[in-house]
Amino acid sequence: MKSNRITALLGIEIPIFQAGMIWCSGWRLASAVSNAGGLGILGAGSMYPDVLKEHIAKTQAATQKPFAVNLPLLYPNIEEHIQTCIAMKVPIVVTSAGSPRIYTARLKAAGIKVMHVVASSAFALKAQEAGVDAVIAEGYEAGGHNGREETTSMVLVPLVCDAVDLPVVAAGGIGDGRAMAAAFALGAEAVQVGSRFVASLESSAHPRFKEAVLGAQEGGTTLTLKELAPVRLIKNPFYDKIQKAYAQGADTEALRALLGRGRAKRGMFEGDLTEGELEIGQVSALLRSVPSAAEIVHSMYHEALQRIKELNAKS
Amino acid sequence: MKSNRITALLGIEIPIFQAGMIWCSGWRLASAVSNAGGLGILGAGSMYPDVLKEHIAKTQAATQKPFAVNLPLLYPNIEEHIQTCIAMKVPIVVTSAGSPRIYTARLKAAGIKVMHVVASSAFALKAQEAGVDAVIAEGYEAGGHNGREETTSMVLVPLVCDAVDLPVVAAGGIGDGRAMAAAFALGAEAVQVGSRFVASLESSAHPRFKEAVLGAQEGGTTLTLKELAPVRLIKNPFYDKIQKAYAQGADTEALRALLGRGRAKRGMFEGDLTEGELEIGQVSALLRSVPSAAEIVHSMYHEALQRIKELNAKS
Repeated sequence: MKSNRITALLGIEIPIFQAGMIWCSGWRLASAVSNAGGLGILGAGSMYPDVLKEHIAKTQAATQKPFAVNLPLLYPNIEEHIQTCIAMKVPIVVTSAGSPRIYTARLKAAGIKVMHVVASSAFALKAQEAGVDAVIAEGYEAGGHNGREETTSMVLVPLVCDAVDLPVVAAGGIGDGRAMAAAFALGAEAVQVGSRFVASLESSAHPRFKEAVLGAQEGGTTLTLKELAPVRLIKNPFYDKIQKAYAQGADTEALRALLGRGRAKRGMFEGDLTEGELEIGQVSALLRSVPSAAEIVHSMYHEALQRIKELNAKS
Repeated sequence: MKSNRITALLGIEIPIFQAGMIWCSGWRLASAVSNAGGLGILGAGSMYPDVLKEHIAKTQAATQKPFAVNLPLLYPNIEEHIQTCIAMKVPIVVTSAGSPRIYTARLKAAGIKVMHVVASSAFALKAQEAGVDAVIAEGYEAGGHNGREETTSMVLVPLVCDAVDLPVVAAGGIGDGRAMAAAFALGAEAVQVGSRFVASLESSAHPRFKEAVLGAQEGGTTLTLKELAPVRLIKNPFYDKIQKAYAQGADTEALRALLGRGRAKRGMFEGDLTEGELEIGQVSALLRSVPSAAEIVHSMYHEALQRIKELNAKS
């Protein structure tokens, strides 16, 4: 697992990515993951241009190892974020939520490795044609924004591996070494892990949101607001309001008005568990503690290696 | 993989179950799978009492190896089916869609091994308390009837393994050796495979339904009719009617009237791809051929072993 196309491409030791997540993954978390040997990723989707610059500078000061920035391509200030990544010599960019055709060539011309997040093999092929270095296949169980086809990791990862020649990173439902080993069995060469790192010491999630993540039960999340952009979140009172709006026949405009602005910040960063939007994956049902990022990276990796060794011994 | 609690419990050689599926899994398919070393399962949910008796007798004539009957517990003639399984000395029963408390003790007193299908760890615990020998954890990606919480196999299998002491069989999204190896990495001791066996030579699915399964693309299935009993099916013209009914605000009664009786038979057994209900899993997107049941069992098993060996060599 240690020496494959992803670890060689990125110059990392352990093929575990910490997903770039709005409001949760700033420089503290990203640098801790990179220092532990994985790939830390700054979530630029919730950062103003100046804030992203500050987080990149602090990450560069806190680690000598590779790190990445996640750029949701529909972000309003995306052009400024792209310029920042190039000017500040960010080594790796993960793009998502938009077409990889627009910026990939420019980023690669600047010497940046580019990976794109997809939820289908059709989009994986488009990303490959756009010239990205790897694709991240994200299944239905993942938290936050997600695809419309609802394909789960168990089915999506092999589909994407069959569709492209590029290395594939599995995302969605991966919170421990069992799931990491499973992702590799499906054909992935790395895993991207979100929810598990939300509930880490270095995450910038509000302590009340971390508690809500630990408290989430099976069936406690759902994919909703498909008319706007499908998002997996905890079924809290704000979600009940969404349900009530649907029951009253709300159209897209009404849903957009209900969502308003700043709901995710309110929930995830400010800890308003009632009115905030609490984005998290299904795997939250498996989480029981808030360890350090380094503990997460090392225990997940060693558990995965151990699983594979045990399976091999038994078969 | 070969000698674990499931293979020891059931006396089978290869820990691959062919799911008991309405209209697709009669004696030809079940006996072929059992003869290949896996566990063939008769789908009694679509059989009248006399038909089940005939299929059990033919299976017993066609194989000396263990086989099972799947009994959906909400089936109207369930009492007669239970008596048949006991009287005809069926060695293994898989129960689903109902409470395992009612019949488990009676079946076990008759010397029958009992496994129960669940879609959550809460139901897995209830099944364990009811005295079943193993649980089958079925994820959101599976075809046919399914749970309401939408937990995918990647998340559900570890959750159920953590919840119960019993051996766990993984179901949902498993169509090849990659997914089988992944299921074992997650903690399963066997896999239950549906869609892959629908598109097999010995399946009693109508040839047009088998073609529709091969033609199903990513995003081509969906879980619907949640107000009645959630079911994953192909998005065909009948599904478009369901969508239209929802858009018109159909209530449970209207949905039940639309579904009517015999839709699944019409689609899956009689090959009416327009008006029939076509139940299949997401993994149909990965299927490209209609092999024999023995080929499926052996290629899946050997691919899984190969995957594990390769992963171990690389790690």
